[in-house]
Amino acid sequence: MENSGFCNDNYTSETSDDDLVDLTGATCDFPEDVPYLDGDDSAGRSKGGQAQNGSVDVLDLLQGWGSGVGTYDDFNTIDWVREKSKDRDRHREISRKRRQSITALLLSVSDAFSGWLLMLLIGLMSGALAGGIDIAAHWLTDLKEGVCLNGFWFNHEHCCWNSKETTFQERHRCPQWKSWAELTVGVTEGASAYVVNYLMYVIWALLFSFLAVFLVRAFAPYACGSGIPEIKTILSGFIIRGYLGKWTLVIKTITLVLAVASGLSLGKEGPLVHVACCCGNIFCHLFTKYRKNEAKRREVLSAASAVGVSVAFGAPIGGVLFSLEEVSYYFPLKTLWRSFFAALVAAFTLRSINPFGNSRLVLFYVEFHTPWHLLELFPFVLLGIFGGLWGALFIRANIAWCRRRKATRLGRYPVLEVAVVSLATAVLAFPNDYTRMSGSELISELFNDCSLLDSSKLCDYGPLAKGGEPAGNLSEGTVGQAERPAGPGVYTAVWQLAMALLFKMAITVVTFGMKVPSGLFIPSMAVGAVAGRLLGIGMEQLAYYHHDWDMFHGWCSPGAHCITPGLYAMLGAAACLGGVTRMTVSLVVIMFELTGGLEYIVPLMAAVMTSKWVADALGREGIYEAHIRLNGYPFLEPKEEFVHKTLATDVMRPRRSDPPLSVVTQDGMTVEELEGLISDTSYSGFPVVVSPESHRLVGFVLRRDLVISIDNARRCQEGIVGVSRVIFTEHTPVEAQGAPPPLNLRAILDLSPLAITDHTPMEITVDIFRKLGLRQCLVTQNGRLLGIITKKDILKHMAQMANRDPDSILFN
Amino acid sequence: MENSGFCNDNYTSETSDDDLVDLTGATCDFPEDVPYLDGDDSAGRSKGGQAQNGSVDVLDLLQGWGSGVGTYDDFNTIDWVREKSKDRDRHREISRKRRQSITALLLSVSDAFSGWLLMLLIGLMSGALAGGIDIAAHWLTDLKEGVCLNGFWFNHEHCCWNSKETTFQERHRCPQWKSWAELTVGVTEGASAYVVNYLMYVIWALLFSFLAVFLVRAFAPYACGSGIPEIKTILSGFIIRGYLGKWTLVIKTITLVLAVASGLSLGKEGPLVHVACCCGNIFCHLFTKYRKNEAKRREVLSAASAVGVSVAFGAPIGGVLFSLEEVSYYFPLKTLWRSFFAALVAAFTLRSINPFGNSRLVLFYVEFHTPWHLLELFPFVLLGIFGGLWGALFIRANIAWCRRRKATRLGRYPVLEVAVVSLATAVLAFPNDYTRMSGSELISELFNDCSLLDSSKLCDYGPLAKGGEPAGNLSEGTVGQAERPAGPGVYTAVWQLAMALLFKMAITVVTFGMKVPSGLFIPSMAVGAVAGRLLGIGMEQLAYYHHDWDMFHGWCSPGAHCITPGLYAMLGAAACLGGVTRMTVSLVVIMFELTGGLEYIVPLMAAVMTSKWVADALGREGIYEAHIRLNGYPFLEPKEEFVHKTLATDVMRPRRSDPPLSVVTQDGMTVEELEGLISDTSYSGFPVVVSPESHRLVGFVLRRDLVISIDNARRCQEGIVGVSRVIFTEHTPVEAQGAPPPLNLRAILDLSPLAITDHTPMEITVDIFRKLGLRQCLVTQNGRLLGIITKKDILKHMAQMANRDPDSILFN
Repeated sequence: MENSGFCNDNYTSETSDDDLVDLTGATCDFPEDVPYLDGDDSAGRSKGGQAQNGSVDVLDLLQGWGSGVGTYDDFNTIDWVREKSKDRDRHREISRKRRQSITALLLSVSDAFSGWLLMLLIGLMSGALAGGIDIAAHWLTDLKEGVCLNGFWFNHEHCCWNSKETTFQERHRCPQWKSWAELTVGVTEGASAYVVNYLMYVIWALLFSFLAVFLVRAFAPYACGSGIPEIKTILSGFIIRGYLGKWTLVIKTITLVLAVASGLSLGKEGPLVHVACCCGNIFCHLFTKYRKNEAKRREVLSAASAVGVSVAFGAPIGGVLFSLEEVSYYFPLKTLWRSFFAALVAAFTLRSINPFGNSRLVLFYVEFHTPWHLLELFPFVLLGIFGGLWGALFIRANIAWCRRRKATRLGRYPVLEVAVVSLATAVLAFPNDYTRMSGSELISELFNDCSLLDSSKLCDYGPLAKGGEPAGNLSEGTVGQAERPAGPGVYTAVWQLAMALLFKMAITVVTFGMKVPSGLFIPSMAVGAVAGRLLGIGMEQLAYYHHDWDMFHGWCSPGAHCITPGLYAMLGAAACLGGVTRMTVSLVVIMFELTGGLEYIVPLMAAVMTSKWVADALGREGIYEAHIRLNGYPFLEPKEEFVHKTLATDVMRPRRSDPPLSVVTQDGMTVEELEGLISDTSYSGFPVVVSPESHRLVGFVLRRDLVISIDNARRCQEGIVGVSRVIFTEHTPVEAQGAPPPLNLRAILDLSPLAITDHTPMEITVDIFRKLGLRQCLVTQNGRLLGIITKKDILKHMAQMANRDPDSILFN
Repeated sequence: MENSGFCNDNYTSETSDDDLVDLTGATCDFPEDVPYLDGDDSAGRSKGGQAQNGSVDVLDLLQGWGSGVGTYDDFNTIDWVREKSKDRDRHREISRKRRQSITALLLSVSDAFSGWLLMLLIGLMSGALAGGIDIAAHWLTDLKEGVCLNGFWFNHEHCCWNSKETTFQERHRCPQWKSWAELTVGVTEGASAYVVNYLMYVIWALLFSFLAVFLVRAFAPYACGSGIPEIKTILSGFIIRGYLGKWTLVIKTITLVLAVASGLSLGKEGPLVHVACCCGNIFCHLFTKYRKNEAKRREVLSAASAVGVSVAFGAPIGGVLFSLEEVSYYFPLKTLWRSFFAALVAAFTLRSINPFGNSRLVLFYVEFHTPWHLLELFPFVLLGIFGGLWGALFIRANIAWCRRRKATRLGRYPVLEVAVVSLATAVLAFPNDYTRMSGSELISELFNDCSLLDSSKLCDYGPLAKGGEPAGNLSEGTVGQAERPAGPGVYTAVWQLAMALLFKMAITVVTFGMKVPSGLFIPSMAVGAVAGRLLGIGMEQLAYYHHDWDMFHGWCSPGAHCITPGLYAMLGAAACLGGVTRMTVSLVVIMFELTGGLEYIVPLMAAVMTSKWVADALGREGIYEAHIRLNGYPFLEPKEEFVHKTLATDVMRPRRSDPPLSVVTQDGMTVEELEGLISDTSYSGFPVVVSPESHRLVGFVLRRDLVISIDNARRCQEGIVGVSRVIFTEHTPVEAQGAPPPLNLRAILDLSPLAITDHTPMEITVDIFRKLGLRQCLVTQNGRLLGIITKKDILKHMAQMANRDPDSILFN
């Protein structure tokens, strides 16, 4: 695995976390409470009553966990069927013992509740981490602008919390908070103050981003990026050791704060999913049930990804649907319920930490009340089209850039790259108010509908602004509010927003995929929110100056408040996020949880649906799938249908020109022959047949299990030499006088490999692989074994049918 | 199918709707644009290039739709794999043609959008029907009490809409509305008026229920019950012709109104799911894509069931989750998105009809603001335990009663049964205010938290009541509201509620399962709401009289408003509904959509979770699963895990003592022999093998297809006689001189039957059946065909392992 492809570069996984089963130190003893492994179905059966022959000790020996049988190599695909079987065996064992003693009964109860406890822990920990990240990022972001005299650890808002100026506008200007210019050169206004502030802003930004990339490179290369593509792949049954380990968690949490504070065009929402999944994976180690079973662990990780979105947006239901729709592969209903629980715990933990200082759960709280008109669906759909176009273009541009990074020398200097992008971002962002503020602040401001006592430039409307201090009764809500002409502030804001839009669009393309934790939700939403707000202001002014036009007739009379620019911003944000990620239901539900009313669901659906259709027309893949493909992960997309009319025989190995299929016979090979077969080939498993002539399938044996078992037997079992016969039959035959004792490996034989016929259409084969989570499948013709299809073969075939390079699939 | 078991009785399906493909009139001609059928994979392949031999016309002939090949018998299970394959072939065909002409391109676009159009239609129609049902039921319910002089078609509320008495309390007393006593004997008060009203109430109730049961019996026996068990079964891949037909829709809509108006202890929510599914099924006939494909149609029906709940509760997201969690079997993400769309359309249609007259979407609008205290979780969990207990007991009692109805003479007089129960309900319900009102009114009243100017007895609290007309500032909300001592009204209400609780609990057991449309949501919620309200009032009075107790210390000081009895009612309702149906996430989300805030999600989850755990401990099945089992439907529960350690060889047929497996050889049998095999056996399909000796599997042929094909060939193909050889090979061999021409049936041969080994654990087999939606699966041993496992075999085996009667599974 020279090219692990993380964050699209060439470094190798150097960290190897503790979930790797150590093979080198495998001993011949084994634990007493060995869970029943797959393969040997006859040994543990209550029915049938086969005679237990002499080789039973060897079987037991081989089943020991210490031997590593039943585990997986790094960067390999798991076998869901086997994992689930293992878990059921474990469960049966516990149920069986339950009746025997009180201790076992208690163990069984604790086993049943361990899932819930795990969810509670994940929820608490993720909520706490998200709160901490919010608070720290807020503080560091403000540090770029100034410092609090009461204590440097206060952010701007907290610093002025107890300030005398209690009016809303003055709240953010308090004597305790000093900008860098004030602190160093002693002035608050003028060119020199501006230059000092500018300089400090750039320096801090550079420092933060350098620290972030340095920490990632030095301690946890897996901490970069958003993590969602890798989590999707892991959830689909891939092993990346250390990707969800404790070092990744620690470094990702710290560097996420730094990256967000550096002002780069990235968000913390995607990485929060990774952080939550790390928490999930780490807590899994507390429970044998989840530690030792890859399938069960993935159920927990599915729930953890729901937790991530839940804390990112304060939207528990949206988070669960996100996990279901976007991330998860195998999502049983039990997981749905548990995810929901974990997402809620996390949301409430976050709320009790109260990082936004407003007792609110949601990231962007919006409270619109103005109804929308059916004619407004037209601009809403326009926003959807914009979102779809931007999403598709962004994906293409970003993938092209990442490919370039991988292929050229650019990829070799990640620190320099981050420094340059960070410098450019800071230098270009500072002069514009809307790029200087953080992405989430920008979105909040754009979503705001100016009904409150707002000091923002965006709310600088004619009559309201003219009257100076707004009258008290206007603060009651939108009642009585009317369409107003834009004031000078709004015109300035429009120009600045337009510049901000272009800047954000360009810089996000190069930012996503760098060696720092970087989420895509906030930048995408920011682009959409800016575009939406601009359109909203345009519509509003149109309605004000041309309320006699036919299109406004009847619903937008003069003096009425009919257009809400904040709503346009929200729809734009949803449309762009939808275009980039291709989320649908979960996106709508997240937005619904933000607004808290069904009122705007129809516009939201219209925008999101249009966006998805437009984006899909330009390219089928969302950004996460595109990155998965870029990295060559073996991910079998559950959403996309296989449309070609090929058969299993077209995909299976060996091809017509290849050497014949390497098989193992059930009783005809010696240890030496097997070792030769293993060293000559690199297949990850071999079918076992009755005889080479009949090619009647008996079972399937994994290479890794075979290597470990032979190795173990040679070291620990007496009399096993190179010429010992290896047999896979139920009864060990009696060997001729003088011959070495045979080695019975039936224990590692999978007696229930799935076999399909050579005429099976590939669409059905792909379906079987997806739904059962297979790693390989055997192909037969009229009852004779003909070949084998692996997940990699399928992915290569799919790439070929889509005119892509089949060698882009790197892993098994 | 003598015993179709609908609504647990013995009548046969008399209606046979138009989706039955008529076999008797099958002609030898066939449509031109025949979609490609499964089985013959070589004919349509682009690659490979096999020579098309002389039998190609016969193949085409057999593929014709008119011949009925590829359809199913009534009360049979579909093959999901085959249906999905068929749809993909159809889709490929359209994609291929798209490039050829503009018409084809338009057809392809309309094909792509037909799903959305269908959803729109279902949403509109279901919303409209639900609105109509609401209005009609409301009117008929009020008709039991009196009539409007302005026009008999006005309900009580509409009648008094324009009345002079505008105060809240007087709103329902207007001169235009006359009670029956007023109208007939001219008095409004006193014993005689009471008797007349009582009598009229009972008469109307009897009339409505009689009409309902008469219509159901006479026109659409499938219209009875809630329909959810059958819909679950249908969605899992079962065929019940006419169950979702137009007659069922019409009759169910009418009788649902009558049943609800009759005052029986039933709700309209479950049947609304059936109504929505009927709409979905009927609209499917507009589009070939859905009409001709059982799998695609089930996707639509999944969405329709979401629509049903969406209109029932005004909870679109909850509806989608209900469909996902409770009803659906195969729920691809595309369906999730479409369901959501349909659910929204339906909800907005319903809102524009505005049946509740308050512009609100939801059935029970609640607006609590009082925070709850952590200590209150204890009574909340108590409610959960009550709900779980009641749920489990209700299921047992109801199933026992339904079994009794099936087994004894009771089942033979459904009309009498309905009349008796209806009479009992009316007679017992009238004297008690809380049973006289309809279930949803009762629940609304119990959910109410008395903060409004309420004239209800439940809000007759001491100080507030003593002051006569409440002060204006109290109407502002809960601010300033304090714990109050209960007034005499509350004491009366408590007694009446206690009686109502017992009555509802008893009568619901005998009502659910009668020959009228009957939903279980409202009665379950009503029981829970009564119990919850009682507990809430108890807690409230405890807090008032003992606010110095330790448990109230610190959060419930005198003068504070700390207990909300309405919240208790809501939690009780959720707990009871959860106990009966075992819904979890969807129930919480539905309740969340009712209350519209995250505030009460934790109590809700606590109550629902406790309820589910308690109920599961007493019996694993929810009411719908219990009814499915009662009726012997072949439903493979997707939630329940198979825990036993049996192997495929223990389940497959033939058993050791049985005659050997009936197989067809690929080229060794004559037409006569095949016909003999068909008439001697009743299997629904036969494996095709190379030769009887080798037992090497070639494919699988369905009995129905075989019968139809041989019949067709005998009638239409020249030279086919009894001694003609039937061959399934690719190339038709040359027959000896003088021998009749062979009949090549490779077209109907499924060349890709799934085969598992005899050592495959049943847990994996069950998983494969569930996930792939199989109808049967072949079992091999070392490459030799050994037997066959059908879905029915699996269900019988599961019943046996659970110590139930395996013969309770009636259908294939």
